Amino acid sequence: MATHRFQPTRYYNVIGTAEPCLLVADGDTVIAQTVDASGLDAREMAVAPRPNPMTGPFYIEGAEPGDTLSVRIDRLTPSRGTGWTYSPLALTVLDPAAIAERPASERAVWEIDAAAGVVRLREPPPALAGFAPAIQPMIGCFGVAPALGQALSTATSAQNGGNMDYRLFAPGTTAWLPVSVPGALFYLGDGHACQGDGEIVGTGIETSFEMEVTFRVLKRTITWPRGETAEDIFTVGNARPLDQALQHATTEMVRWLGEDYGLDQRAASHVMGQVVRYDVGNVFNPAFTVACRIAKRWLR
Amino acid sequence: MATHRFQPTRYYNVIGTAEPCLLVADGDTVIAQTVDASGLDAREMAVAPRPNPMTGPFYIEGAEPGDTLSVRIDRLTPSRGTGWTYSPLALTVLDPAAIAERPASERAVWEIDAAAGVVRLREPPPALAGFAPAIQPMIGCFGVAPALGQALSTATSAQNGGNMDYRLFAPGTTAWLPVSVPGALFYLGDGHACQGDGEIVGTGIETSFEMEVTFRVLKRTITWPRGETAEDIFTVGNARPLDQALQHATTEMVRWLGEDYGLDQRAASHVMGQVVRYDVGNVFNPAFTVACRIAKRWLR
Amino acid sequence: MATHRFQPTRYYNVIGTAEPCLLVADGDTVIAQTVDASGLDAREMAVAPRPNPMTGPFYIEGAEPGDTLSVRIDRLTPSRGTGWTYSPLALTVLDPAAIAERPASERAVWEIDAAAGVVRLREPPPALAGFAPAIQPMIGCFGVAPALGQALSTATSAQNGGNMDYRLFAPGTTAWLPVSVPGALFYLGDGHACQGDGEIVGTGIETSFEMEVTFRVLKRTITWPRGETAEDIFTVGNARPLDQALQHATTEMVRWLGEDYGLDQRAASHVMGQVVRYDVGNVFNPAFTVACRIAKRWLR
Amino acid sequence: MATHRFQPTRYYNVIGTAEPCLLVADGDTVIAQTVDASGLDAREMAVAPRPNPMTGPFYIEGAEPGDTLSVRIDRLTPSRGTGWTYSPLALTVLDPAAIAERPASERAVWEIDAAAGVVRLREPPPALAGFAPAIQPMIGCFGVAPALGQALSTATSAQNGGNMDYRLFAPGTTAWLPVSVPGALFYLGDGHACQGDGEIVGTGIETSFEMEVTFRVLKRTITWPRGETAEDIFTVGNARPLDQALQHATTEMVRWLGEDYGLDQRAASHVMGQVVRYDVGNVFNPAFTVACRIAKRWLR
Repeated sequence: MATHRFQPTRYYNVIGTAEPCLLVADGDTVIAQTVDASGLDAREMAVAPRPNPMTGPFYIEGAEPGDTLSVRIDRLTPSRGTGWTYSPLALTVLDPAAIAERPASERAVWEIDAAAGVVRLREPPPALAGFAPAIQPMIGCFGVAPALGQALSTATSAQNGGNMDYRLFAPGTTAWLPVSVPGALFYLGDGHACQGDGEIVGTGIETSFEMEVTFRVLKRTITWPRGETAEDIFTVGNARPLDQALQHATTEMVRWLGEDYGLDQRAASHVMGQVVRYDVGNVFNPAFTVACRIAKRWLR
Repeated sequence: MATHRFQPTRYYNVIGTAEPCLLVADGDTVIAQTVDASGLDAREMAVAPRPNPMTGPFYIEGAEPGDTLSVRIDRLTPSRGTGWTYSPLALTVLDPAAIAERPASERAVWEIDAAAGVVRLREPPPALAGFAPAIQPMIGCFGVAPALGQALSTATSAQNGGNMDYRLFAPGTTAWLPVSVPGALFYLGDGHACQGDGEIVGTGIETSFEMEVTFRVLKRTITWPRGETAEDIFTVGNARPLDQALQHATTEMVRWLGEDYGLDQRAASHVMGQVVRYDVGNVFNPAFTVACRIAKRWLR
Repeated sequence: MATHRFQPTRYYNVIGTAEPCLLVADGDTVIAQTVDASGLDAREMAVAPRPNPMTGPFYIEGAEPGDTLSVRIDRLTPSRGTGWTYSPLALTVLDPAAIAERPASERAVWEIDAAAGVVRLREPPPALAGFAPAIQPMIGCFGVAPALGQALSTATSAQNGGNMDYRLFAPGTTAWLPVSVPGALFYLGDGHACQGDGEIVGTGIETSFEMEVTFRVLKRTITWPRGETAEDIFTVGNARPLDQALQHATTEMVRWLGEDYGLDQRAASHVMGQVVRYDVGNVFNPAFTVACRIAKRWLR
Repeated sequence: MATHRFQPTRYYNVIGTAEPCLLVADGDTVIAQTVDASGLDAREMAVAPRPNPMTGPFYIEGAEPGDTLSVRIDRLTPSRGTGWTYSPLALTVLDPAAIAERPASERAVWEIDAAAGVVRLREPPPALAGFAPAIQPMIGCFGVAPALGQALSTATSAQNGGNMDYRLFAPGTTAWLPVSVPGALFYLGDGHACQGDGEIVGTGIETSFEMEVTFRVLKRTITWPRGETAEDIFTVGNARPLDQALQHATTEMVRWLGEDYGLDQRAASHVMGQVVRYDVGNVFNPAFTVACRIAKRWLR
């Protein structure tokens, strides 16, 4: 149950089967530095190219293909006082007829006020003078090596995780990922200080982080990422269009309710039909992300 | 500001330009009986054919093409003690490869326990013996006459509303609909005692209702349905795939933030990027429904 | 086997259940005048509003719900010497990132040179000085009354036909449509002198026509439109996204091969897997159109 | 202008940046052996795992990132006398409601009769006793290393090519691919003796091949694959849903008409609107493939 501190010297723009940066035991914790989506570190120095440079990969001892890697997100601490976003809204979320009237793309800087626990635009327009949503840190991109020797761009996501940009991958959440190679090879980065549903400006508030996560190897097999918060369990599908992402997530939830909660397909549908919630993780990346979520109080 | 009580003697399976059943003034309230999605009334008598027989249409005096009809949902009271759902999950929410393993479709009966405020399966499997979610009544299908003399099946939805099956069309919500004909011609029905996101079993808990709504005519023009709850404002897009429904809803929200909240496209994107929520109304009907929602505390 | 000549005095922008303009017997031929998509007639007089004003509806005696209406397209003769198109390409066929760089929408006039059998831009840019594709007339929009008393905009299409904009609905083709009301109630219009796949500029070469069609009532039931040319049989699906339109068309073809050609699902798949062709009718209208086509020489 | 013969001893299930198997000069020809989609070679020995084991990669001297690799398909000769397909139709091409009634998946063997130039089921059902479509060989999967160090499964496709399963990648066609790494790193395999549009049984007639291709390096940049046959030019988009694949292909064609044929966007739209053809390469793989095709006789 060791805790490892890791400061990367190189970063990865694909999630694949690179040489591990660190070997960690089942149960260990890693405290790792990550850079922002454009490769800026805690000092705002450009140390890696786009997109979404990853810290890692971490080799988790005992993880074998067919296993599940459990990743508890212990803490996500921004490592600098600013982040950035794009505006206006992304092309993927507007009616095509509205695209011609979009203003030009711009980058905006946000102050991350850790003391007050909020983010604020550095130069807000008058209409947004008081706009200060809470800091809600999340991991935009993390995952394990995919199957077959693939190496997938950190711009996108798949069954192995990746750039899901789902705001519930946040402190207190435990994520599960399907392992395809020995050691799992876990990568993480692309932290956001805040983000609404869908990452609809093409970014969260992008900044560098110190991220603390704890690994467990589970001797069970899953198909798509799963997660658990204090309140909920959820499954994640990554695909286009959103319909297909939702189908993956829903089908995985049916499997989970059968495996762990004693609900056959019919019973699962009775519960899900009345209490399921869907979240749009992102509707911007090459693969969109939808989560299928159920409050644990409905399950035994 | 009169209150009208209305018990229909005929029902409609399209939202079109039928003869009005009642003329009501701007500001009036209607208390109307509705039957369930299969045409069963408060006594469980079959009084109308599928799909989703509508009560109405109500002619709201003063409503003209280009106006907006505001419909405050005052009260939704189930008019009988049972409702029904289908199981298992709908074909639209499962991976195609999972469809072959689905059990056969069945209809289940739910007790609507008004005293306890919950719904319960009449014959639950053992695993669901204690499953009793709260009654959360909603209007599955309501809308105004569409443009051009169209008459649209109550199985689907469009810019004029229709079978959106969105759980926030609930008591306390005010919905806005774009008016295309004199008098608006408002229809409603298809009440659900409860429903999760997406109507993923193809139904909510379908039952007959007494529905109380209050109309206001607004001399302004909208493109897609809008709504307001105690906490939030939201816009609704109806289309396939979900991506397109989301685009309609998002684009309408950008318009609304510009019209009423002083936010240009860039400012709107700064707010929406950090605090927007998306809800999947339904992912079952011919047109899917997505809502774009923002908490009012972020707006002035 | 009478031949009826029909010059409309009113037009329809929905395909629904209007009063028939003419009663015709099973086996009869109708020679009807149609106006262009914007309502311009043979003299270029504006006689009807958009979209796609329809001639009809024709009541075909003996047609009953559950039957199939066979419509042989005998002849499509442009009734004036010019047609028009839009430019540039439609929003639906471009990458969203390319939309911002589109030139403004313009209407162009084309000469329809019946003697030479070609169309030519009236004012071609130099690069298109010699561009003169053959006149290939087609019916953009035609169909029968939909089920349930619906009235559907002539901008879109569904199981009953409508604005499919498929270039093989041309002289020599026989189309089949599923009948939902007594008399079928057949509408037609929106003729194009030429059009590529997909109607990707949002129009074909839009002009007024004299259209000659012959009706037969078939005592059999189909689900989606079907057609037959000298070479091929085809089925048509109308939906969004294209994937779903393709699924409808393919599933209908499997049914047809089973009903008329003695091929069970497995045999049908062996044939279709090797020789099927897909055509994109339109990728512009609210419902997209895909045809699934098989050369008759592969079938017995 | 050398000709190289290559018999692989190892195969790849991703298109990435493996060590080159052979260095070839700009202008050289390669005659390479390929195995079928399941890894069976000319003797029907299993020599490689699924999916779609690739021969290569070939390093083409002089190819640099930003260049285009031209690949002329000179000859595709099946290297054994049988191929195989699946039945029935794939899950992606059927209405979801039809999936439950599908027969079980089976593998069928086809005789490849080179003398007669046709394929025939080895054990045809009676209804298909005479069914013998022409051998029409094609390359199912080929491409160059993608950008960023990615390694993409040969089950799917992207801007760099891959598993496009488009039947016009056939002898006589020249394909263009965008180069992302020095030497391009070209892979090929997954030959089909025949295949209809869409690869709708999940396979063509899968067999091993001797494939002859000739490489040229073009000092120009493209975004998506392009191709040229005796009659046509075409562009290819790979994505889901089909709509997006079509958008990529169409946008690339607009670029091409501008670059090489002197047509600005408006002129391009006038031509494409009247004569464009769309082909569905595949509607089965993780990324679907659509080609946008124009007959060269319309271009100068």
